[in-house]
Amino acid sequence: MGKEKKPKLKVGVVGATGYAGAELVRILCGHPHVDLTVLTSRQYANVRFDRVYPALQGHVDLVCEELNLDRLTSACQIVFMALPHKVPMSVVPGLLAARKQVIDLSADFRFRDVGVYERAYQPHNAPELLKQAVYGLSEVFYADIQTASLIGNPGCYPTSALLATVPLLQADLIDPTTIIIDSKSGVSGAGRSLSLGTHYCQVNESFKAYKVASHRHNPEINAIASQIAGISVAVTFVPHLVPMGRGMLTTQYAQLRTNVSADAVRECLQDFYAQRNFVRICPPGRLPETMHVKGTNYCDIGFELDQAQRRVILISAIDNLVKGAAGQAVQNMNIMSGLHEAEGLAQTPYPV
Amino acid sequence: MGKEKKPKLKVGVVGATGYAGAELVRILCGHPHVDLTVLTSRQYANVRFDRVYPALQGHVDLVCEELNLDRLTSACQIVFMALPHKVPMSVVPGLLAARKQVIDLSADFRFRDVGVYERAYQPHNAPELLKQAVYGLSEVFYADIQTASLIGNPGCYPTSALLATVPLLQADLIDPTTIIIDSKSGVSGAGRSLSLGTHYCQVNESFKAYKVASHRHNPEINAIASQIAGISVAVTFVPHLVPMGRGMLTTQYAQLRTNVSADAVRECLQDFYAQRNFVRICPPGRLPETMHVKGTNYCDIGFELDQAQRRVILISAIDNLVKGAAGQAVQNMNIMSGLHEAEGLAQTPYPV
Amino acid sequence: MGKEKKPKLKVGVVGATGYAGAELVRILCGHPHVDLTVLTSRQYANVRFDRVYPALQGHVDLVCEELNLDRLTSACQIVFMALPHKVPMSVVPGLLAARKQVIDLSADFRFRDVGVYERAYQPHNAPELLKQAVYGLSEVFYADIQTASLIGNPGCYPTSALLATVPLLQADLIDPTTIIIDSKSGVSGAGRSLSLGTHYCQVNESFKAYKVASHRHNPEINAIASQIAGISVAVTFVPHLVPMGRGMLTTQYAQLRTNVSADAVRECLQDFYAQRNFVRICPPGRLPETMHVKGTNYCDIGFELDQAQRRVILISAIDNLVKGAAGQAVQNMNIMSGLHEAEGLAQTPYPV
Amino acid sequence: MGKEKKPKLKVGVVGATGYAGAELVRILCGHPHVDLTVLTSRQYANVRFDRVYPALQGHVDLVCEELNLDRLTSACQIVFMALPHKVPMSVVPGLLAARKQVIDLSADFRFRDVGVYERAYQPHNAPELLKQAVYGLSEVFYADIQTASLIGNPGCYPTSALLATVPLLQADLIDPTTIIIDSKSGVSGAGRSLSLGTHYCQVNESFKAYKVASHRHNPEINAIASQIAGISVAVTFVPHLVPMGRGMLTTQYAQLRTNVSADAVRECLQDFYAQRNFVRICPPGRLPETMHVKGTNYCDIGFELDQAQRRVILISAIDNLVKGAAGQAVQNMNIMSGLHEAEGLAQTPYPV
Repeated sequence: MGKEKKPKLKVGVVGATGYAGAELVRILCGHPHVDLTVLTSRQYANVRFDRVYPALQGHVDLVCEELNLDRLTSACQIVFMALPHKVPMSVVPGLLAARKQVIDLSADFRFRDVGVYERAYQPHNAPELLKQAVYGLSEVFYADIQTASLIGNPGCYPTSALLATVPLLQADLIDPTTIIIDSKSGVSGAGRSLSLGTHYCQVNESFKAYKVASHRHNPEINAIASQIAGISVAVTFVPHLVPMGRGMLTTQYAQLRTNVSADAVRECLQDFYAQRNFVRICPPGRLPETMHVKGTNYCDIGFELDQAQRRVILISAIDNLVKGAAGQAVQNMNIMSGLHEAEGLAQTPYPV
Repeated sequence: MGKEKKPKLKVGVVGATGYAGAELVRILCGHPHVDLTVLTSRQYANVRFDRVYPALQGHVDLVCEELNLDRLTSACQIVFMALPHKVPMSVVPGLLAARKQVIDLSADFRFRDVGVYERAYQPHNAPELLKQAVYGLSEVFYADIQTASLIGNPGCYPTSALLATVPLLQADLIDPTTIIIDSKSGVSGAGRSLSLGTHYCQVNESFKAYKVASHRHNPEINAIASQIAGISVAVTFVPHLVPMGRGMLTTQYAQLRTNVSADAVRECLQDFYAQRNFVRICPPGRLPETMHVKGTNYCDIGFELDQAQRRVILISAIDNLVKGAAGQAVQNMNIMSGLHEAEGLAQTPYPV
Repeated sequence: MGKEKKPKLKVGVVGATGYAGAELVRILCGHPHVDLTVLTSRQYANVRFDRVYPALQGHVDLVCEELNLDRLTSACQIVFMALPHKVPMSVVPGLLAARKQVIDLSADFRFRDVGVYERAYQPHNAPELLKQAVYGLSEVFYADIQTASLIGNPGCYPTSALLATVPLLQADLIDPTTIIIDSKSGVSGAGRSLSLGTHYCQVNESFKAYKVASHRHNPEINAIASQIAGISVAVTFVPHLVPMGRGMLTTQYAQLRTNVSADAVRECLQDFYAQRNFVRICPPGRLPETMHVKGTNYCDIGFELDQAQRRVILISAIDNLVKGAAGQAVQNMNIMSGLHEAEGLAQTPYPV
Repeated sequence: MGKEKKPKLKVGVVGATGYAGAELVRILCGHPHVDLTVLTSRQYANVRFDRVYPALQGHVDLVCEELNLDRLTSACQIVFMALPHKVPMSVVPGLLAARKQVIDLSADFRFRDVGVYERAYQPHNAPELLKQAVYGLSEVFYADIQTASLIGNPGCYPTSALLATVPLLQADLIDPTTIIIDSKSGVSGAGRSLSLGTHYCQVNESFKAYKVASHRHNPEINAIASQIAGISVAVTFVPHLVPMGRGMLTTQYAQLRTNVSADAVRECLQDFYAQRNFVRICPPGRLPETMHVKGTNYCDIGFELDQAQRRVILISAIDNLVKGAAGQAVQNMNIMSGLHEAEGLAQTPYPV
């Protein structure tokens, strides 16, 4: 990667002590073109970040601050918002007005249709911004991201599902009305907030489904799948919780169009991602495992056919905190800033 | 449960030191109507069982023996076979000839159609016995089991899948051609044999699919689903590996027949299992989790509808070593022997 | 165990929805001589217990109640208190005044010396009861427990440590001034309350020490060790957290008295526990592992000598929620009630 | 770190498909001054490395080879040996004769006294090399490593223990005859070989001690502690197995010399490591946790005093595969090669 002497980008992270925020800090503090200037945290205002995350002792010496719009606009060019939905839509307008670039990891700017957002979430404060927001699925909307000033960074489940189906939908290799998505996520996806659902003893050595056919990522997937397919698509989506920290595996089922072969599926996927750095198509005979992508920005994709039923079974694996959140957000920052998309993200995966 | 002074059943376990075998020993050594007389193990012949499984110190004082047909026929009335497929079909004919009852946990006697077995496994030595063998899905084939002398005990995946779908197939509430089965199993299902796939570091903190649309339990599920539905059924079946020891959760998707309501699905399931002890239908708003059944013979079943797609999503949870293997085998022994089906199996589940 | 037709004991559990409380419910609902009459829970008052712990569906149909002294005294003979310290000392006097028997799982009645309690915890409301309270380390204070009306049930760490050292201290085989206790506990010991320290992602795949030389179980161990040794003993005690749900392993180091052999240590331990059901001394060449006692009331003890240093290394394993809390409490109830100590606790351990 | 245009070092890894070997590959394939030329593996000869470790797809395109001395000497300047002890001592003499630098991760070159090696391991083939071998505890023997051609890379347990005690021994703050070392390791330390002891179900959700006072790392620790203390030291050492993949925590107990304060201990540690990059002394009130160092070359050290007993309790945490094996080996390569010790190792730790 380049060694040109560009001035560094001044970057802030709002909500830096949640898991997605802390992962942003991890990536950005080692990014060669970034100068991390502001970290905000309501819970840990005035506490050194490395006292909250001792792993980072020696890597970050910033002290967490309260969220303050003036402070952000004076100290940053680019702001990552790593807060729960609802808060960002009150802060982002001010940042954009000050001509800052914003990458929002919440759901607030992921939808073009305010009605879909409001049915799944709540009334929207800044619906006029939805038109200019770009959905940050980096490989799919690369060109739009290059010129965007506001990114709605995708949810982890939509990222893992759409990266596998979008190429096939676009090439019309599958019937969009038959898509069933069975996803499995590690516990870090639930964030750092305390709840019985993230209590060690309630999760450890157990496996369950949750929010069956009612998860908020379902309309998000529907919206993008519909946009790509050119018709209204409603998938069946069931998320599950895996007793592990990081990682997400999504298994998808869809009917193949007539005469579509395994080779056609493979070629379609390979061609779609030929120029991209972070999607790896598994060679025949190998399928993704979450351990292969842990800690990295990769999405690994593999598939098999059920020939008797004419169904394709697509399997994709990501690290939910990296490609599913902070990593993809930084990838989008790179693309928006004219940097190589892999800058600061070229982590060698751990063998085990 | 009864306190009648029946003489105890003399019982042997062949293959006692594998995980299913050891689980049989655990249950049988505390069973009030069982006298455990013979444990065989090729690997640990002449070793005390409780040196192989120190947890059982003070509960079993038997020494493992080599498999010997004369020894088994002279010391046992009932023999559990907990060996990999292929071996049982050479031993079982001799046991039956000596008028012993046999419960075989391998695949050797699960199929009526020898061709299906031979395509999935290998040539069969004793195809003439397949007609008299009863498929030991206790709740579904209860009446046949009562009079059986040879049980083909079901696989763990088929048990978890079929207990949820059989009632709906039988009542024709779902379209049998649309069934997709996404199963997730703990690692103990792979047994005690050493392999890279069960090495701690290759499994821990990872999640993967395996044998996608090619697992040997697929034809087993197809055969029973077809028998119940009265037409040839071929499901799509994808197993996954969960980083935990015990437990299996199966998520199934199927198209509902026209006008079938959630209430109809619930009633169908509740009625089917009203007289049985080990299937619990979750109340509305609750879904199965593997921790609720860990260490027990329960199968918990719950469901949701995807109304937009007219799909039912069935979720079932078992302990793969208990209801998925040893527990169901003992339940079948109880039924064959005229005992209450829960005898020796009425373990209170652990809250956490 | 006996089948005599005694009337059942009416038993209540105060604080039934914490982990120790729920474990009491698990054991007591299957206890042949117990009629479980009252469960209290502030957080879940008026909620069915099996909605809080769905694992127990079909085993308990009680609804949780607010704590009410009149209700307890009218419906129970024996009351288990499974609340954090401080609350019990306000409730127990009323129960004793009503001639109920009480087994308190908090620290409130574990100390004879109110000063020691108050230095480690807080001012004591009912110091006059400390004299009549019996420390419920079942095997060590068996005779006192038989006639007790108030039991201070031991902490999990003291149970695991003292069961190994008490016999050697009593026989003067080790130097009491040299005891170092390095304990490792599963996460369930921290209870069901939410805290960052029990959040899945903060515990999973990590290992740490905590409250080094400052844990409140330290004075508890000191007090009993001093009582047994007949001199003032102050041990060094360091607890650690293991990424697993249940289980505690304690490794202890002490200087052997001159000429004490491995055989002498072994005999001492075996003789001390010869008449007891729940302490198993490992045969030479085998050492305890927590999986061998998981879900049971066992304490497994093993040891090795470091001959060069003349140190004995004692290793003991318990399930922190059973022998370390609810199981030992029920064992004490059995002893107080003239039942066999193992009644309701004779769970066969799981092989894996 | 520097951008000088040195030619890259040609490096080979012998035994590349074990866990330590694969971790070397991970680090070296991203090292800016390394050209990875040869990977050997007996088991996977002629197989692409990234088929054995799919995580590394896109990062390494080498094919594994059989071990061949000529091939190594012609293609490498520096060779890492990641084989079990015994094999290296037959290969290393040939490499040294060809004027290659060797970093051996086995025990073969860790001891100066061949007798100690032979009592713990086996007869030594190349005892004449022991004198020139340098023990690769990077921070302690930095100067010797700079000029070494053969490194005996330390064991993981000795690394974690000695980094905490060496400064105190050297400053005579503790009594060397009183050291007790209670270590806890993740499962990856046992390597990739199959054994019942690394079978998922035998390790998961359990905790145990093993090789109590008889582990081969005990004489290794004794030798270095003696060398530093200037008298013969024999520690008591007990390793334990933690149900997690990576990470090692060591808790050490020792009597303080008279009048040594907490401040003196802290200063001693801080001064000793003031110029080094990979040892972090925890600030007061914080103690190491293995998650803080996972995936990194750090050793975090913290401590508490048991004032009553005048004991210091030292706690140190490393990633057993990095600072405990491959990372320290690369650190040693850097030091030997005149590079900054952190080159290629400056991984930002994961916050969670």
